[in-house]
Amino acid sequence: MNLDTLYSELTLKTDAKLVLLVLDGVGDIATGGPDSSTPLEAASTPNLDALTQNAAQGRMIPVAPGITPGSGPGHLGLFGYDPLEFQVGRGVIEALGLGLELKAGDIAARANFCTLNLDNSLEDRTFLRSVLYYQITRDFIPAPKANYVRLVINGESWGIYVNAQQFNKDFVKDFLTDADHHREGLPIPPVRPVNDRSAKAKKAAKLVQAFFKMALPVLSKSKPANGFLLRGIAHQPAIPGFEERYRLRPACIAVYPMYKGLAQLVGMKKIEGPQTIAEQFQRYLDEYHRYNYFFIHYKYSDMHGEDGDFEAKKKSIEELDSALPILLQKAPDVLAITGDHSTPCALKGHSWHPVPVLLTSAYSGSDKLDRFTETGANMGSLGVFESKFLIRLMQANARMFDKFGA
Amino acid sequence: MNLDTLYSELTLKTDAKLVLLVLDGVGDIATGGPDSSTPLEAASTPNLDALTQNAAQGRMIPVAPGITPGSGPGHLGLFGYDPLEFQVGRGVIEALGLGLELKAGDIAARANFCTLNLDNSLEDRTFLRSVLYYQITRDFIPAPKANYVRLVINGESWGIYVNAQQFNKDFVKDFLTDADHHREGLPIPPVRPVNDRSAKAKKAAKLVQAFFKMALPVLSKSKPANGFLLRGIAHQPAIPGFEERYRLRPACIAVYPMYKGLAQLVGMKKIEGPQTIAEQFQRYLDEYHRYNYFFIHYKYSDMHGEDGDFEAKKKSIEELDSALPILLQKAPDVLAITGDHSTPCALKGHSWHPVPVLLTSAYSGSDKLDRFTETGANMGSLGVFESKFLIRLMQANARMFDKFGA
Repeated sequence: MNLDTLYSELTLKTDAKLVLLVLDGVGDIATGGPDSSTPLEAASTPNLDALTQNAAQGRMIPVAPGITPGSGPGHLGLFGYDPLEFQVGRGVIEALGLGLELKAGDIAARANFCTLNLDNSLEDRTFLRSVLYYQITRDFIPAPKANYVRLVINGESWGIYVNAQQFNKDFVKDFLTDADHHREGLPIPPVRPVNDRSAKAKKAAKLVQAFFKMALPVLSKSKPANGFLLRGIAHQPAIPGFEERYRLRPACIAVYPMYKGLAQLVGMKKIEGPQTIAEQFQRYLDEYHRYNYFFIHYKYSDMHGEDGDFEAKKKSIEELDSALPILLQKAPDVLAITGDHSTPCALKGHSWHPVPVLLTSAYSGSDKLDRFTETGANMGSLGVFESKFLIRLMQANARMFDKFGA
Repeated sequence: MNLDTLYSELTLKTDAKLVLLVLDGVGDIATGGPDSSTPLEAASTPNLDALTQNAAQGRMIPVAPGITPGSGPGHLGLFGYDPLEFQVGRGVIEALGLGLELKAGDIAARANFCTLNLDNSLEDRTFLRSVLYYQITRDFIPAPKANYVRLVINGESWGIYVNAQQFNKDFVKDFLTDADHHREGLPIPPVRPVNDRSAKAKKAAKLVQAFFKMALPVLSKSKPANGFLLRGIAHQPAIPGFEERYRLRPACIAVYPMYKGLAQLVGMKKIEGPQTIAEQFQRYLDEYHRYNYFFIHYKYSDMHGEDGDFEAKKKSIEELDSALPILLQKAPDVLAITGDHSTPCALKGHSWHPVPVLLTSAYSGSDKLDRFTETGANMGSLGVFESKFLIRLMQANARMFDKFGA
């Protein structure tokens, strides 16, 4: 029996309030001998410490042992979707990061500018740092009108998307080859359907080629970049809606577009406005009665981890801790605090290390740990588990599951 | 490769004695801050404590994260059967709870008495607390004789079962709809096969309908209950026999019918007679030479957990601990002590919380923990694992597995 089906069958409605507080990339590693510490350990966190008195702890594996997830799989796991089953293509992630609103059926790609020689061969494909900006508007709509093509170029990232509602989820992954040989000296290859028998992929390939035909002349006089490459052409995946799947009314209180986008992908309501964690918590108080699942995203623990800046990461955790009493003015019935992945300062990037997680509710039990840290979480009752089960534990703590079997 | 197949292929015969001692619902949660404790922690357990000097500990997930199991799935897991693969229907569990001996091919249902109006519509379906007793005997056998129908009504629970040896395991779950609209005002609905193309389900539906036709007139003059409803009509599942699966001769020393029934379902020999845990341990000594796997079931830790009675649960654990030296007069080669699920006093019911487990043998190793408790088990070498693997760890400790690969 499929486990998700079982969970669905056992799910009861609830009025309980559940909060997932994500400290992006919070997990870290101690590297310097017995007295070395992680940012979580080094930080002064009186409010988190107080929560541990009645909390269970553990560590979560975002995808699989040794796998370093991007933000997409990291968050899908936290939202209860198996990141291997529900893959979000790179183009879609890029578009979400730009704050583009993708609709069912849209496809998106990651675009890089490049320099083409007179013979159309690729001279240089390393314009990732260009600051060119270009937008192709609806004026370039090819027939049929319903399938318009748009290129959005902004800062370092660009997206192209094709509205094509007839496309469905068999296109999620690798349905078109890249318009990129991934090396210099050759012309831009035309995209091809990965599966030759898919009529819809063939149609999408034609649309992308039509887009190249229109867009290249627009750029041809630009310098140094007079062309572009497309990679990771992906369809917005068909993901079962969060509300129906979990019987929870979800809202997202995030600052950065990527996380809003990921939340929107599963059908969460985006709450716009707050710019600081204190404002985010304040907004949670205001919206408390409207939703019963809140995803609150805090970016800075990851950002400073990426910079390898231990002090700044530590301080970002302390800043979050200071703001926590605002959230706790209306303490949710179930509160989970964790990261979507670890971002150890020593690695200056995402990593595979299990993420510490704290879960508190009237039924979480207390692991009697003094603090919420990586080494503390190693001793918690939740053990080491896959991130995708976190929401199931949150639901259990909200008493949302009927008993299985007599 | 199927893991059960691998285990089977590697299994060696043994003369070692293995004991699974189940303290039903023993797991609990501490809820009151740093000094709060669980019943296991609060209890004085010198004999369990002594065992920990040479034991491995860990915590077990009965079914899946967040899932609260009934006694059926809880015990099937302990017996090494995946509770999702081998589901036992409610009717079968009820029948086992009544001490009915089900045979392969039997189907069973949960029955409630009800009051029917003159137009046959349902007046009241809440007779769960009736103390009516009725039994329909073989006099009511319909043709063909081989398929007899019997209604057993006793106390609060009743079972109906239909001997129908031609039925097989595709009927285990939901093979017939309920003869119960689950609300008042409508007549009792006829049962229907869930899968219309199953000839066997059709035949079973006819038998149940024939049973209603015979049984309702018998009750028609009774007051206030003059009818009955049937729910959870289930087939006894086809479960691979314990002895063949594990190459162990198993015996069950339990007091309550439900647990004897579950043991019998997998082919264990039921040992009747003992009424107290001391008597159960004494009987183990007497039967020591006849079997090499003993399932010993202790009910009271669960019972007091269900009542939310911390003191009584604590005392029941102390009572078990006091009796433990009887068992240890002939210490088994492998002894596992655990529960089928947690029954926290704070929840007054079964729960999803991982169950502490202690495993001791000449090869278990020592986790050097002072006591057997929830928080101690969090630090054990067994980690957090699914209950269905416990028997495999017991077999490994009995040196029953050949090396896998060269």
